[in-house]
Amino acid sequence: MTETARANLENLYRIFTVPEAPDSTLGAIDQAISKNVADFLQKHVVALERSLEDIEKDFSHSQIPDEPTFVSEYTTFVKEKLVAQSVHTAAPGFIGHMTSALPYFMLPLSRIMMALNQNLVKVETSKAFTPMERQVLAMLHRLIYAGEDSFYQQWIHDSRHALGAFCSGGTIANITALWAARNRLCGPRDDFAGLAIEGLPRALDSLNCAGLAILVSRRGHYSLGKAADLLGIGRKQLILVDTDANNRIDMASLREAYNRLQQQNIRVLALVGIAGTTETGHIDPLVEMADFAAEVACHFHVDAAWGGPTLFSDTHRHLLRGIERADSVTIDAHKQLYVPMGAGMVLFKDPHTLTAIEHHANYILREGSKDLGSHTLEGSRPGKAMLVHAGLSIIGRRGYELLIDLGIERARRFAEMIVAHPDFELVTAPELNILTYRYHPAWLQQQMANLDSQRRQHINDVLDQLTREVQKRQREAGKTFVSRTRLRSPVYGTQQITVFRVVLANPLATDDILEAVLAEQRDIVSSPDLQELLSSITDICQLTAPNCC
Amino acid sequence: MTETARANLENLYRIFTVPEAPDSTLGAIDQAISKNVADFLQKHVVALERSLEDIEKDFSHSQIPDEPTFVSEYTTFVKEKLVAQSVHTAAPGFIGHMTSALPYFMLPLSRIMMALNQNLVKVETSKAFTPMERQVLAMLHRLIYAGEDSFYQQWIHDSRHALGAFCSGGTIANITALWAARNRLCGPRDDFAGLAIEGLPRALDSLNCAGLAILVSRRGHYSLGKAADLLGIGRKQLILVDTDANNRIDMASLREAYNRLQQQNIRVLALVGIAGTTETGHIDPLVEMADFAAEVACHFHVDAAWGGPTLFSDTHRHLLRGIERADSVTIDAHKQLYVPMGAGMVLFKDPHTLTAIEHHANYILREGSKDLGSHTLEGSRPGKAMLVHAGLSIIGRRGYELLIDLGIERARRFAEMIVAHPDFELVTAPELNILTYRYHPAWLQQQMANLDSQRRQHINDVLDQLTREVQKRQREAGKTFVSRTRLRSPVYGTQQITVFRVVLANPLATDDILEAVLAEQRDIVSSPDLQELLSSITDICQLTAPNCC
Repeated sequence: MTETARANLENLYRIFTVPEAPDSTLGAIDQAISKNVADFLQKHVVALERSLEDIEKDFSHSQIPDEPTFVSEYTTFVKEKLVAQSVHTAAPGFIGHMTSALPYFMLPLSRIMMALNQNLVKVETSKAFTPMERQVLAMLHRLIYAGEDSFYQQWIHDSRHALGAFCSGGTIANITALWAARNRLCGPRDDFAGLAIEGLPRALDSLNCAGLAILVSRRGHYSLGKAADLLGIGRKQLILVDTDANNRIDMASLREAYNRLQQQNIRVLALVGIAGTTETGHIDPLVEMADFAAEVACHFHVDAAWGGPTLFSDTHRHLLRGIERADSVTIDAHKQLYVPMGAGMVLFKDPHTLTAIEHHANYILREGSKDLGSHTLEGSRPGKAMLVHAGLSIIGRRGYELLIDLGIERARRFAEMIVAHPDFELVTAPELNILTYRYHPAWLQQQMANLDSQRRQHINDVLDQLTREVQKRQREAGKTFVSRTRLRSPVYGTQQITVFRVVLANPLATDDILEAVLAEQRDIVSSPDLQELLSSITDICQLTAPNCC
Repeated sequence: MTETARANLENLYRIFTVPEAPDSTLGAIDQAISKNVADFLQKHVVALERSLEDIEKDFSHSQIPDEPTFVSEYTTFVKEKLVAQSVHTAAPGFIGHMTSALPYFMLPLSRIMMALNQNLVKVETSKAFTPMERQVLAMLHRLIYAGEDSFYQQWIHDSRHALGAFCSGGTIANITALWAARNRLCGPRDDFAGLAIEGLPRALDSLNCAGLAILVSRRGHYSLGKAADLLGIGRKQLILVDTDANNRIDMASLREAYNRLQQQNIRVLALVGIAGTTETGHIDPLVEMADFAAEVACHFHVDAAWGGPTLFSDTHRHLLRGIERADSVTIDAHKQLYVPMGAGMVLFKDPHTLTAIEHHANYILREGSKDLGSHTLEGSRPGKAMLVHAGLSIIGRRGYELLIDLGIERARRFAEMIVAHPDFELVTAPELNILTYRYHPAWLQQQMANLDSQRRQHINDVLDQLTREVQKRQREAGKTFVSRTRLRSPVYGTQQITVFRVVLANPLATDDILEAVLAEQRDIVSSPDLQELLSSITDICQLTAPNCC
């Protein structure tokens, strides 16, 4: 062995055996985060936005470096180029996304999880993590379905059944639910071995139908489209049913859609209800949907990725009434359970449902083993369930209730602020803790009602442009952040309008911060080019209705 | 607000604003892991195994606790009940699974990643993490396909294309590859809008064929069966082709399988080559497979989840020759890139392939944006790519080469030890760093060749029982660990036998440790009940061939 080779080998062993010194560059950052993560993020995440094109220059090499880099050198790069240019998702003024500040205990517990590096696919590489994950699934199952003690005693650790599946997020959870629903509908019968074995085309023959469809409202999450594609159903068969004025599925339209499918001899694989739409936080009429699903005998899935934890609240739980009749429910842990990114779950009312997607392998997932991997879409998986277990234990039902109640109250107060301010327009009032609004100056609001639809449309187009521009500049300034989306408002008929979207899940987002968000937006609007944009509306109005502005 | 409510609210704010004190129970564990993770694991993970049924008792409550628990109290529970009963995956004597020790820098860097809590689905919640992840994909792409500088300059940050998809692991990577292959084969044509829109049954009509199939050897990973089910193809259409004596796909059998499908008018959606089978670490003849895929014009996917990083080695890279002709390649980062659990990738030769699964949504993933979420199966995802970026930068090509070379050399030495020991039988020799073997006493090996197949089968059944028992007791003793699987050995025809499976990826697994693994197995075999089991073979032989033993 050459001297260089020996030196390289020694260095290699070092990175596996010698911890980072506390006074090293990386050790110091580690300490700083341990001591005060909020302070660390405040100091190191740069507020003012560099353009993405500019940031890309720091990540443009496609060649893997030949020689090793010192950890200290790499850490400096991470600090200056990655951390500095990341998004301060935990900042209380960042109320545009579904990622909140994390409880402090999550970070040191995450380190334990990372250090243990368990693989939940099988007991041999996860041991106690397997029953722990099953317990988490049982706890969430019970939160939704409120079964008897004896039910959970029977199923919680039953190796041949599962109360749900833990996964990397709500998308995989929704896909898993629809996968199980599809395979159950197309199960073995007579000389047909089931869709899982024989495939979808043969399954349609067996069911003697022309296709399968999924029914959901227009506000359904984009993961459902992915599921329709992935499962071979086709996006065209994801039927987007019209909503009422409150973004809830319209039951009459649902029935019509169902009847149309019947006429085409298309079977409904699942009806999906939403408990907290991503864009507006509204909840579908779950009781009526459950009735309908029972009537037409189809799988009823509820996507409660966002709204599920509302079940913790004695005050607001009633909003989700009917969820306990769902065959499956998606809940994201990295949203309102305040767990770091990458944790979702799907729960199944009937512990037998997941057997429709069961699979085994020789070297792992042996039949009858307690390996969790036999009922999940993913294979190797980390022990993230530990952090859900920690949240449920440390925060408890009462703590989560407080978080939910706080968010909903704050959203209502924010809605009041918006309504109270003559130059803002509340587009969707919060049912949970999400609302949408836009800047719409009082003088324009007053005139708009009297204009014809063509001019209204034109004004909305200009306001859309304004909203986009305000949202962008606010984000770039880096002090506060709201997101934006496009949706229909009953006030403007079928025209989609662009709106600010606000999610109030961060308990540190105080009323002062909300006031500051509105103040900053007014401030941005007052800049000369945006005032000019607004006055272009006046021109248009003058052209066609001289006295309107 | 009542006094209790106020107190609860204050406590709630505390968990979001007050860091764990360094001298608290959790703070102390955090410090201990920072200082010396190996020492922490050594001290806290209990070697001796409790039964799973016993462990389950600690995780049997299905009710979420009403009231909060003190962090210190919960941490004590975690330490005593979860950490103590987890698996010491990093122990150098644990050579049965694909999870190795982690380089030390991974833990503090993981903490930075967790603290930032970015969501890679869209730029608005990940900023610099988006170009960083795209860079990682480009680096791995280049490792495999060795494109020109100009190629990567063009595509690395191109918003409408992707060189690959980052995901939670190899299973999602394989599914993504086959999903893209299926949709590309069944793309839009004439009045058919494509499978993604219209679904699989209409796609078969459009292609004028009776079904789709996936071809892979018998050693294919179980995720491919999941993919066949999920994608609506059906497990029956995952055609498992026979292997040669070295666990590599038999090309003549492949051609026969293909011809049979042709006769049934079934189109091949993808041919899958394996670079490092999960059970034996063998590599398919990728050049011949690439030729065949080109001849029949089908998508060629290589599952290099395990073996991909062999490309770092100047000495062993040639084993993977042909991989550069694959349309897509899976590589797991949590295997031989030494990243914590939950990181995989799929790379696509042609940057246009992933457009076959592209999807958009109003509030995120707007068309033309650089949001990574438009090309991934998963939705919200953590910034795990950062840890791959760190590994590639800090360890470098030379470092990974050393790790690969070390593992392969060590596996060869372990194979020599096994062969040298008269009471062990090497079942599959290592091509990479995986091998299988079993305990098979010399006296029995000598006789076995002369016995008829029925008696050989009987003896193998008894040896299977012995292997299972030894593996179980070794695991339970907790000092060392090998896994087990069942496979065919050319020596015993079509009968599957149970074998020990060893994976040598932990650079700290020295020769001494390997000797200790064998010594412990001999020791277990010497226990009276297992000796009795072995002597039952003598009885059988005496019964049917008195002089044989």
